[in-house]
Amino acid sequence: MRHIRTDLAMESFQAAGRDEIPGVKVNHWETMGVTVTEVIIQDEDAGRQIGKAAGNYLTLECPGIRQRDIDSRLAMSNLLGEEIARMIRREGDQPVLVVGLGNRNITPDSLGPKAVDKTLVTRHMFREIPEFTDKRMRSVCAIAPGVLGVTGIETMEMIESLVKCLNPQSIVCIDALSARAADRICSTVQLTDTGIHPGSGVGNHRRALTKESLGVPVIALGIPTVIYAATLARDAMELISADREADGAALDDIEQQLLKADIGDMIVTPREIDDLITDAAGIVAAAVNRALQPELSEEEILSLMD
Amino acid sequence: MRHIRTDLAMESFQAAGRDEIPGVKVNHWETMGVTVTEVIIQDEDAGRQIGKAAGNYLTLECPGIRQRDIDSRLAMSNLLGEEIARMIRREGDQPVLVVGLGNRNITPDSLGPKAVDKTLVTRHMFREIPEFTDKRMRSVCAIAPGVLGVTGIETMEMIESLVKCLNPQSIVCIDALSARAADRICSTVQLTDTGIHPGSGVGNHRRALTKESLGVPVIALGIPTVIYAATLARDAMELISADREADGAALDDIEQQLLKADIGDMIVTPREIDDLITDAAGIVAAAVNRALQPELSEEEILSLMD
Amino acid sequence: MRHIRTDLAMESFQAAGRDEIPGVKVNHWETMGVTVTEVIIQDEDAGRQIGKAAGNYLTLECPGIRQRDIDSRLAMSNLLGEEIARMIRREGDQPVLVVGLGNRNITPDSLGPKAVDKTLVTRHMFREIPEFTDKRMRSVCAIAPGVLGVTGIETMEMIESLVKCLNPQSIVCIDALSARAADRICSTVQLTDTGIHPGSGVGNHRRALTKESLGVPVIALGIPTVIYAATLARDAMELISADREADGAALDDIEQQLLKADIGDMIVTPREIDDLITDAAGIVAAAVNRALQPELSEEEILSLMD
Amino acid sequence: MRHIRTDLAMESFQAAGRDEIPGVKVNHWETMGVTVTEVIIQDEDAGRQIGKAAGNYLTLECPGIRQRDIDSRLAMSNLLGEEIARMIRREGDQPVLVVGLGNRNITPDSLGPKAVDKTLVTRHMFREIPEFTDKRMRSVCAIAPGVLGVTGIETMEMIESLVKCLNPQSIVCIDALSARAADRICSTVQLTDTGIHPGSGVGNHRRALTKESLGVPVIALGIPTVIYAATLARDAMELISADREADGAALDDIEQQLLKADIGDMIVTPREIDDLITDAAGIVAAAVNRALQPELSEEEILSLMD
Repeated sequence: MRHIRTDLAMESFQAAGRDEIPGVKVNHWETMGVTVTEVIIQDEDAGRQIGKAAGNYLTLECPGIRQRDIDSRLAMSNLLGEEIARMIRREGDQPVLVVGLGNRNITPDSLGPKAVDKTLVTRHMFREIPEFTDKRMRSVCAIAPGVLGVTGIETMEMIESLVKCLNPQSIVCIDALSARAADRICSTVQLTDTGIHPGSGVGNHRRALTKESLGVPVIALGIPTVIYAATLARDAMELISADREADGAALDDIEQQLLKADIGDMIVTPREIDDLITDAAGIVAAAVNRALQPELSEEEILSLMD
Repeated sequence: MRHIRTDLAMESFQAAGRDEIPGVKVNHWETMGVTVTEVIIQDEDAGRQIGKAAGNYLTLECPGIRQRDIDSRLAMSNLLGEEIARMIRREGDQPVLVVGLGNRNITPDSLGPKAVDKTLVTRHMFREIPEFTDKRMRSVCAIAPGVLGVTGIETMEMIESLVKCLNPQSIVCIDALSARAADRICSTVQLTDTGIHPGSGVGNHRRALTKESLGVPVIALGIPTVIYAATLARDAMELISADREADGAALDDIEQQLLKADIGDMIVTPREIDDLITDAAGIVAAAVNRALQPELSEEEILSLMD
Repeated sequence: MRHIRTDLAMESFQAAGRDEIPGVKVNHWETMGVTVTEVIIQDEDAGRQIGKAAGNYLTLECPGIRQRDIDSRLAMSNLLGEEIARMIRREGDQPVLVVGLGNRNITPDSLGPKAVDKTLVTRHMFREIPEFTDKRMRSVCAIAPGVLGVTGIETMEMIESLVKCLNPQSIVCIDALSARAADRICSTVQLTDTGIHPGSGVGNHRRALTKESLGVPVIALGIPTVIYAATLARDAMELISADREADGAALDDIEQQLLKADIGDMIVTPREIDDLITDAAGIVAAAVNRALQPELSEEEILSLMD
Repeated sequence: MRHIRTDLAMESFQAAGRDEIPGVKVNHWETMGVTVTEVIIQDEDAGRQIGKAAGNYLTLECPGIRQRDIDSRLAMSNLLGEEIARMIRREGDQPVLVVGLGNRNITPDSLGPKAVDKTLVTRHMFREIPEFTDKRMRSVCAIAPGVLGVTGIETMEMIESLVKCLNPQSIVCIDALSARAADRICSTVQLTDTGIHPGSGVGNHRRALTKESLGVPVIALGIPTVIYAATLARDAMELISADREADGAALDDIEQQLLKADIGDMIVTPREIDDLITDAAGIVAAAVNRALQPELSEEEILSLMD
């Protein structure tokens, strides 16, 4: 089985082209104008079939976000906040560490750092001014570790160091993803309890950030911001090939022409990607803030942010 | 004849698929590691054949720029400066107006505004401190008029107003372009004496900025920063169609699948487009500065810029 | 009478040190937590006494804005919107032109360009898609003309050209100001029907933008973002001098020490000026949008902005 | 003895108002148009006299930098590079960790993060592509840890964690400083082997980053970007007081007037601080790159940076 390049588990399942895969459960529902697809991969064997780690994946789709509709953004951020809260179950006083992956200076890879900028950070308040700290506030810290070529330090090294120092109860990773379908770009959020795996994300992480590697639960939140041009081209090739196979013919010349186009490192994005990333970072951060501060109102969160 | 969506005259000529077109002359040469293609469209009839206005188009290609090689950038900016100087012939004291087209907040459309930021502007010095003004310095003013949706004012309206007020001897427009071939993105410069035409550029201008419309010579300088995803898909379709036609068969199902992908408004760019645009703006501005200030040394230009 | 360097008419009046000046009326009131001071300069003679042009000046003060309090920002922007609407009286179909003065790349001078970024611009919609244009929407266009050293074109030249082309019914100028009192920085808005005068603003405009020079009413909206260090030092010197004069003594040595400090071109700002400018631009733009679109709700304005 | 608020040891010495202080040695010299002042504080007792830690402080002054003169920038960065190299003595294969302190979003505090952006980072190359790694290249990693209120993590916690993980041979900290004299702002660099101490820097660090606290040598590099307005006011007050004391008179009223001005949190900077910080970050990064890569030429460093 061929693995299409996408970070969305639901697209990997679709690409497999089968209605049912043993060990993979898929559910759909709709709420508040958002279409939700749940993919549950029950074990590693099932995961290998679609090229994803075992665990739960929730995909929330809402096309209105791409049109920059305000109501759609609100609906998405509310629903996402609820689902994060369900997945992360806050307990005790230890902080939650929010990690914004990706490169701030590459627009389609900047979702993580930009979402971290809008995350309400509170851990220092407990230490500095404990007497003024609202009892309903929970401890949160956040970091955008940059990328290897910028710091010379691997994200995994940095997070591992911080986990030893901060002893967080859990980690929330935010990252820009790739998808296969054009209409999912900047309109879809994937939430998973499987953490971050090598090769995923626009920045292509090298090492896993998971409960296994870090010792604390890691949930990952991502929004697809690009299609790899090579994926687009390959999809076209597949269509042709299928067609030709039916004819019993070969394809070499055309194949060569398409492949020699050298689009390997190019990406496909909406033209207005800068604005869409800003919106997306706002949606994700609002959802994270609500989930991590369940006892504060939206107004209280906003006024603490400034 | 079908018109592929590209702003490069040399690609329009290639797309026509004929070795010779009456009224179109094409020359190639190489110098300092830069491949130059000159397309001369002698009259409007010839222009219609390839969907471009009559006039001269010079395309300079240097793949090293895409790899961010410093020597390649220098070679390109030197050669480009010479060609602009040849095209614009400075005379008298009237200023040259440099116009940076495009939207500063959309990365692949921001070439023009960013190049204008690095252009040496001198007109105000002649008016403010005439006694200190170097006799070798020439009058230059520059503007990035923004885009219609940002200002509510059409670029053409704004430039027309400024031309009346400033009475420039000529206009240099800088704009981000689209191309058809992936390897020309951010490695190629097109220089033309035909000005800017409706529908061209990443921002898709609505009205012409030409000698006819403005009353002064307009040269246009552009670097392709995107391929339209629809162009990529159409190119793939063409290959398939050609292939199928040879078989005498129809293509409807596949065609529908590819077309329903809804990639109409998406663009294809290199992943590191932010850095490449910064490089490109530097190359273009350095060339413009040299061409418009032929009697100043590079060091003098640099020290006047700060 | 000595003229302290401040762009606020109320401070110029205070600096005069007299309770009453013939031809100058001053009123105070408070509403929604905002202190309003109205200075009416009835004629040019009176204006000369305090170094300001004849006309009406409204100063709105609200210290909570400096603490980044959300309710204070809302109160200020609502009240300011009402006062702009009172001053500008919209009539007919001609557009209002909003002008953001100042330099985007100098933080304390960037208020104007940043406010223009958040202004709802509609003029192009009437021209492009007249059939979909809401009858309640009014025509607005906006421009941030940059500064002389950046474009080589004087702001006055550019606005004059645009006025000829756009034929606006009135002009709203937004600019960063200087003040004398530290607690007014980024907590105060001045609104005046006298336009912009030479030497005013952080960027120090050279020519007037007024009804006399442009032929249409010009209102000016400004927020003080800096104190000139020389003003601070001079204020200190004045205190000393006054004190010494009472003693009948000279001050030369100290005067020399303070003056040789070479702080002439330095400015005094709050440390968090970047964030305060962002807030201020939001307050001003929200007020302008409400005043210029009286029949649209806040939600409608927001959804048209994206 | 009163301690004026300045991060420059040479100003603390001057403020002490004595020609000689036991245990403090001061030397001056000039080279390449740069005035160098060396302050050697031989023990803690001597340090307490001027409110600075024991160690070596080198201050390099070059007024041309403030005028944005290119030759001055080059001279400063060359000389500074030599002095860093003298202080840091590179040995063995362990990396040097460059730390950019301060807040990227507060212009006068952003020197550190901006200098880190321009630092050549190589540690990852040794790990990823050891076979292509130039033997003359040395291992460097770099981080801008942000500020407590942004991440919820103290800088000291983060650096301590990274030191355990990276085991660097030494640390170079870059920070924006405060000074007392206006003409030193953005024209002066201080280099010291004493590290970073609580209360220093524009961002006011809370805990020490020193050899004692981190276990590896820490050198600190800073450029003054602000004067605290309170320092300016206090300096004026001192002059007055000294003057009045000579008269045997009190100062209460004036003192109250100046002190009630509430300028406590305000800073004094040059108007063009944004551009000056960009220049300063370039100077510091160029010096650091030369010092940490003594066997690479400037061209090699530049080409590795892109």
